[in-house]
Amino acid sequence: MSPAKVGDDAVRGWIVPVGGAEDKEADIAILKRFVEVSGGKQAKIAIIPTASVLADTGSRYEKIFARLGVASAYALPFGTREEAQKQDWLDALDDASGIFLTGGNQLRISAILGGTPVARAIRRLNAHGVTVGGTSAGAAILSEHMIAYGDSGPTPHAGQASLAPGLGMTNRVIIDQHFRQRDRLGRLLSALAYNPFAVGLGLDEDTAAFIDPDNVIHVTGSAAITVVDPSGLEHSSMPTTSLGKAVSLTNIKLHILTDGGRFDLNSRRASPAAAPPDVD
Amino acid sequence: MSPAKVGDDAVRGWIVPVGGAEDKEADIAILKRFVEVSGGKQAKIAIIPTASVLADTGSRYEKIFARLGVASAYALPFGTREEAQKQDWLDALDDASGIFLTGGNQLRISAILGGTPVARAIRRLNAHGVTVGGTSAGAAILSEHMIAYGDSGPTPHAGQASLAPGLGMTNRVIIDQHFRQRDRLGRLLSALAYNPFAVGLGLDEDTAAFIDPDNVIHVTGSAAITVVDPSGLEHSSMPTTSLGKAVSLTNIKLHILTDGGRFDLNSRRASPAAAPPDVD
Repeated sequence: MSPAKVGDDAVRGWIVPVGGAEDKEADIAILKRFVEVSGGKQAKIAIIPTASVLADTGSRYEKIFARLGVASAYALPFGTREEAQKQDWLDALDDASGIFLTGGNQLRISAILGGTPVARAIRRLNAHGVTVGGTSAGAAILSEHMIAYGDSGPTPHAGQASLAPGLGMTNRVIIDQHFRQRDRLGRLLSALAYNPFAVGLGLDEDTAAFIDPDNVIHVTGSAAITVVDPSGLEHSSMPTTSLGKAVSLTNIKLHILTDGGRFDLNSRRASPAAAPPDVD
Repeated sequence: MSPAKVGDDAVRGWIVPVGGAEDKEADIAILKRFVEVSGGKQAKIAIIPTASVLADTGSRYEKIFARLGVASAYALPFGTREEAQKQDWLDALDDASGIFLTGGNQLRISAILGGTPVARAIRRLNAHGVTVGGTSAGAAILSEHMIAYGDSGPTPHAGQASLAPGLGMTNRVIIDQHFRQRDRLGRLLSALAYNPFAVGLGLDEDTAAFIDPDNVIHVTGSAAITVVDPSGLEHSSMPTTSLGKAVSLTNIKLHILTDGGRFDLNSRRASPAAAPPDVD
């Protein structure tokens, strides 16, 4: 599911993976910014709760987005492959200026929506300017290659990350979520070691990567994003390491970026948030 | 590593995954056809033995291709990420009309060449008409999503196939090789169940899928290709099945195609080889 082609006259929409457990009641910074990049007061937000098995996930986000003052927010609860063909829901999806995928299990999204008109529409809409984001499972699913399974721990092991095809909005990054909370550096490193072409994004809870149409990441949230850049990788024992054994990797570059920090996926350069003004 | 864009004036080259153990001494049907679609007598074949740890893999294929009467055949034995930057080898790669990746371990190819100028050159050359093929590990690596690990057996289990990013010449198929010999239907089905957008190609040994520039597969070889088309998938228990448990799938379409058979990846229609003429 490669990214749909961006036409010469079209600007790709924002891509917004959120690390899970984003604040929904206090400052609601991430969801507010998601609304901003989806059209603000004019935003029409389609919520896709397919990852979740809870009946009220869609309506919960409808209420949150409504409180943030959007023009409309409506859940499209695709639960089966047959429902992914429903024309009225597809029409409603086409009408959105922002699409938000909730948390749950990322394999529910890919197994139910993969290869259906819904998956194709989401890619096409993003290529034509519609913001697409998601939290937790809804973040993992955004990229071409997603982590489907994997054990925790900081040291990468051969076979530790099990990948599956995601919705394919971008192939620049591989995303992991609940990053610090679930000790996932090892599985993200093992996913990158398979093929070190992508950048790893480890998203802490209540922290989001707002990827703009020029592929610059803007960090928003209360914790941090761990950017893992393997482009300078020198030695990797991945090709010769048995399944389950630790993998040796040298010259991996790491950036820890907090609110206001940026990372350019084209130049692979990180810039921290501007320092706050001096206080006397 | 998405497929490179095919320019309006460019025709994509053939993509040729081979199921491993192709005949190299008797009728040599697969390698002969590989030479044909790479320019015949004018063919310049670059051999990439990166998957293999054996020192003579490259020279062995040099001799086979030379015997088949090509203009030139030369191994480029990229063995480290540093060697993947060597300008003279990159120039030699640029000069090829056909690129052949040998067997071994597909993770050696992705871990060593992923994100390097070699991987980018292979995609770019294929997008501009150069044939790219490979056998066994060299077949698995051709697609965007490749099977890196997996257990044998006919029944799919959640987590049975572990995917990794391949070289990304095509995103239409997920390839498995030594298919009948190693009893791999289950792991191919489990890979497709994660996200049923692609077509599965199970390649028996000494059997190849010649994918032409219009995405029609032409089967060549002594055994068969098992085409697994999940586009009509109705029920999938993938989203709710625990790791290691059997996955239920309904309405998967299967085609077993032998030498001369075809499968159109656009229309997803199979056609068998023409029947031989009647014999009295």
